[in-house]
Amino acid sequence: MKVAFLGLGAIGRPMAHRIARAGHQLTVWNRTGSRAADFARGSEIDVAPTAPEAVADADVVVTCLSTSADVEEVLNDGAFEALRQGSTLIDCTSGDPATSKRIAARLAAWNVAFIDAPVSGGVKGAEEGTLTVMCGGDADAIARVKPVIEAFGKKIVHCGPVGAGDAVKAMNQALLAITILGTSEALVALAKSGVSPQVALEVINASSGRSNASMNLFPERVLTRAFPRTFRLALLDKDARIAAQIARDEKVPAPLTQLAADLCSVAHMELGEEADHVEVVKMVERWGQAEVQ
Amino acid sequence: MKVAFLGLGAIGRPMAHRIARAGHQLTVWNRTGSRAADFARGSEIDVAPTAPEAVADADVVVTCLSTSADVEEVLNDGAFEALRQGSTLIDCTSGDPATSKRIAARLAAWNVAFIDAPVSGGVKGAEEGTLTVMCGGDADAIARVKPVIEAFGKKIVHCGPVGAGDAVKAMNQALLAITILGTSEALVALAKSGVSPQVALEVINASSGRSNASMNLFPERVLTRAFPRTFRLALLDKDARIAAQIARDEKVPAPLTQLAADLCSVAHMELGEEADHVEVVKMVERWGQAEVQ
Amino acid sequence: MKVAFLGLGAIGRPMAHRIARAGHQLTVWNRTGSRAADFARGSEIDVAPTAPEAVADADVVVTCLSTSADVEEVLNDGAFEALRQGSTLIDCTSGDPATSKRIAARLAAWNVAFIDAPVSGGVKGAEEGTLTVMCGGDADAIARVKPVIEAFGKKIVHCGPVGAGDAVKAMNQALLAITILGTSEALVALAKSGVSPQVALEVINASSGRSNASMNLFPERVLTRAFPRTFRLALLDKDARIAAQIARDEKVPAPLTQLAADLCSVAHMELGEEADHVEVVKMVERWGQAEVQ
Amino acid sequence: MKVAFLGLGAIGRPMAHRIARAGHQLTVWNRTGSRAADFARGSEIDVAPTAPEAVADADVVVTCLSTSADVEEVLNDGAFEALRQGSTLIDCTSGDPATSKRIAARLAAWNVAFIDAPVSGGVKGAEEGTLTVMCGGDADAIARVKPVIEAFGKKIVHCGPVGAGDAVKAMNQALLAITILGTSEALVALAKSGVSPQVALEVINASSGRSNASMNLFPERVLTRAFPRTFRLALLDKDARIAAQIARDEKVPAPLTQLAADLCSVAHMELGEEADHVEVVKMVERWGQAEVQ
Repeated sequence: MKVAFLGLGAIGRPMAHRIARAGHQLTVWNRTGSRAADFARGSEIDVAPTAPEAVADADVVVTCLSTSADVEEVLNDGAFEALRQGSTLIDCTSGDPATSKRIAARLAAWNVAFIDAPVSGGVKGAEEGTLTVMCGGDADAIARVKPVIEAFGKKIVHCGPVGAGDAVKAMNQALLAITILGTSEALVALAKSGVSPQVALEVINASSGRSNASMNLFPERVLTRAFPRTFRLALLDKDARIAAQIARDEKVPAPLTQLAADLCSVAHMELGEEADHVEVVKMVERWGQAEVQ
Repeated sequence: MKVAFLGLGAIGRPMAHRIARAGHQLTVWNRTGSRAADFARGSEIDVAPTAPEAVADADVVVTCLSTSADVEEVLNDGAFEALRQGSTLIDCTSGDPATSKRIAARLAAWNVAFIDAPVSGGVKGAEEGTLTVMCGGDADAIARVKPVIEAFGKKIVHCGPVGAGDAVKAMNQALLAITILGTSEALVALAKSGVSPQVALEVINASSGRSNASMNLFPERVLTRAFPRTFRLALLDKDARIAAQIARDEKVPAPLTQLAADLCSVAHMELGEEADHVEVVKMVERWGQAEVQ
Repeated sequence: MKVAFLGLGAIGRPMAHRIARAGHQLTVWNRTGSRAADFARGSEIDVAPTAPEAVADADVVVTCLSTSADVEEVLNDGAFEALRQGSTLIDCTSGDPATSKRIAARLAAWNVAFIDAPVSGGVKGAEEGTLTVMCGGDADAIARVKPVIEAFGKKIVHCGPVGAGDAVKAMNQALLAITILGTSEALVALAKSGVSPQVALEVINASSGRSNASMNLFPERVLTRAFPRTFRLALLDKDARIAAQIARDEKVPAPLTQLAADLCSVAHMELGEEADHVEVVKMVERWGQAEVQ
Repeated sequence: MKVAFLGLGAIGRPMAHRIARAGHQLTVWNRTGSRAADFARGSEIDVAPTAPEAVADADVVVTCLSTSADVEEVLNDGAFEALRQGSTLIDCTSGDPATSKRIAARLAAWNVAFIDAPVSGGVKGAEEGTLTVMCGGDADAIARVKPVIEAFGKKIVHCGPVGAGDAVKAMNQALLAITILGTSEALVALAKSGVSPQVALEVINASSGRSNASMNLFPERVLTRAFPRTFRLALLDKDARIAAQIARDEKVPAPLTQLAADLCSVAHMELGEEADHVEVVKMVERWGQAEVQ
């Protein structure tokens, strides 16, 4: 299939690579054009100077941007009218359901299918093609473009109608935030009372309070003070706020989710745009005046 | 060694059995005496009519009660004076560090060592002798009584001075509460927005927001609506409040832990004394008017 | 001026009465038509069978409905096209800024001015014409329709552009929720510890923690157990959620506001549609198992 | 009566002055002795070099220290044994009920009455003798020492048994914290959305969300950016944590109180020991990136 890929960020690049290697004819576009040129150099991948030119011929368009608002903006800047009738837009942005539904409604009138398809698994998962892909949208549309999704995704789950993929992704991220923050509170309080975080984690990870955060993130990134920058706190903040919004929209009281979203926003403000999401522990350490190490 | 075991509850019984089977000479006592008689029937285990008589000859006393206050009460009812000088009290209650420290100080003056040694692993772990035991106290004292602890524990971790075992256990339980509540909020909001909890869990458990709660408790107990009664919500409430207390005592702001403790207390009040800890999801379902199934 | 009044609820009726008595030519409409007929009986007030017919001739349209969504629905049901170009819509609904802005933009294209003008002061203030009116919109438009607003409002405050009136109203309501809930927590905990709520209020109301809630609502409505139904909890819930939404939209971490919104939603669900807003104290009493009386 | 006054802080000094002027024979002691000497210079007030010497002859001892722990420490440093049997200790510290009860029990065995009697009204109230005094303890004991309390207090309220005065004071302070924080959240969100805080306060203070914080503290101290240092945030933090502790001890879920206590602790850590309690708004401003002015 002819595929256009918009958004060559840390995750987008390896995803696009895998699509090209899977035999699809690929055109890429990125807001900062030099990044697209670097990406395509020496390959048969085409670089489009503008988003409308990128999507004009495509059977399938994949977007991988920061927010749903970014997707809407690219569409409003000419890409919408350039989309081929009968084509499909797979939006791998970690978006919000309300905006995705609005985009889908506009595209439907234009006879373009929309699938929200946020991913999890990080850069490594993208490189290895083992991402989990959470799809929201029409089952037939998803089936039609599966060859493209399978280029980068291993576990491809149809979550429900448009917006369902965004919703599941956002809730996963809120749980990530809650477990990082909760584990931070526990380990800071224990450290201050004289218990080694390493010992505490050894016990917790053999007990009922364990989570991906306690089993993987804390031992590898916090105890070591390595804090590799794999996923920005700014994005976790955004995702947690989407989750909080979904709970409000659905009239579901979700006090832990709401509080975690606010704590992520505070940490984002305090730690800055470049901080990694796991660095949120530093806020709790500062508040409690003890270090997890 | 001569061992006295006080408190034959759901966890205490299999622990005491394993101690007897390991070859220690066992005397048991339980507040409701008939339970002790039933327990010992047809075995070589002695039943003491009172706690002071149970502990009088023991090298090692193991207590496994509901709260540290219960332990203090038993000691105040004559057991304190009856304890043999040079003996050791292993308190497997999920207790609170402040009370444990107070008990330890009193016992030290009497030349009795105190070890707080709460366990995790549930009834099954107790039966199989695979409990995790979190020890707080003097390293030499722990070493001396290790043959008794090894009768029921597989992973035996020295967490720090007296109270450290209680503290680690409480924080693990708070994390258990946080992950059950957080996962409940996520799945109720998703269910209300039309996403199947089963599908959502499939994705979350392949992603970064997963926890013991999402990987084990929700698939086995919530989706199935089985809600087996393995650990009472009343006890999770107590444990989460101990964790909240530790954070306050250490002057560590821990807003998620505090909120989770209050939510457990509300659920405990709403769902009653006999509810299982996982049933806390029912409170969130009621609040959000959607079911996780 | 020719005025159309849509929405004859508990507050709307006395407001409309005052507009008629101030000499304006009034046409009213209400979804339940019998209420409009009862209202107008024996007076010179006209009753319109439909909203479009009510607004067709009006210089000024006043809406006083439950939510901004209700206003939008009435407009979508034909009233929009029926509005006279050059007329002004004064929306006294306790609305949300986002919807008000959307409505205003649509009306502007139709050359109809929009003012969001939620009120405070209750039924009594409406009857006496002493309401506080929080206006959002163009200063000139507000000046033009001031004779209508002055019929029911005493303190008329221009808060800013469209949506500003809604925003101030919502934040006032969130503070109302926070002070009722906070005072409830304080008095329930004190009652349980043996301090009379009456004595506690006497002290607090002479001290720094006092609020409208502690000074007026608790002595008059809670201690007496009178709980008159003057303003529904369902509406406080809605208002607090609007406030929480504004904080999220503005990216302002507001953890107390978010938590109070969720607690209002829980109370609304538990206490039902007809409960008064002050009855929220009953939820805290139930949770804490002590009464404020 | 012979009165000993221990603790010449900002509130203690004017209280002690009024006791002397009311005709009581006064001996003072302060940990930093020079402050006591400065205080007494040129008057008939005696200065004692140690606390035990100060209390030895007194019919009534008044303590006005930072925390109950400070009171306990002074008693443990020799003052306890020096107290005259039949004398009364009036503790004007904003203390915690648990410690007050422990002190009272020890003093009772020594035939010394204990009254917890924290005050509100600030330095100005102390100078003018118009403090509100919240008394916990035996009614007869309070009656006996009323001439001393009346020297500085105008509204003297018997709240209940020992600890009740502390409890009421702590809950008042928690409500102060909640109203300052809540009003901060509202005004920061409104400021960021373009509404002037002055206009917002004008409306709120004519509406149902008003409180002492919105009516007095914000107009006088925040809008003006004056932030006079009248009561340290460090003390509000301590008081709010006492309130949170009372709720936990009474098993009353009090999520707003718990959250406010944590937010005060965070603000205390961020803004330092010398910050005034109203400066807590600066934390919310920083988080929300907008100023209330």
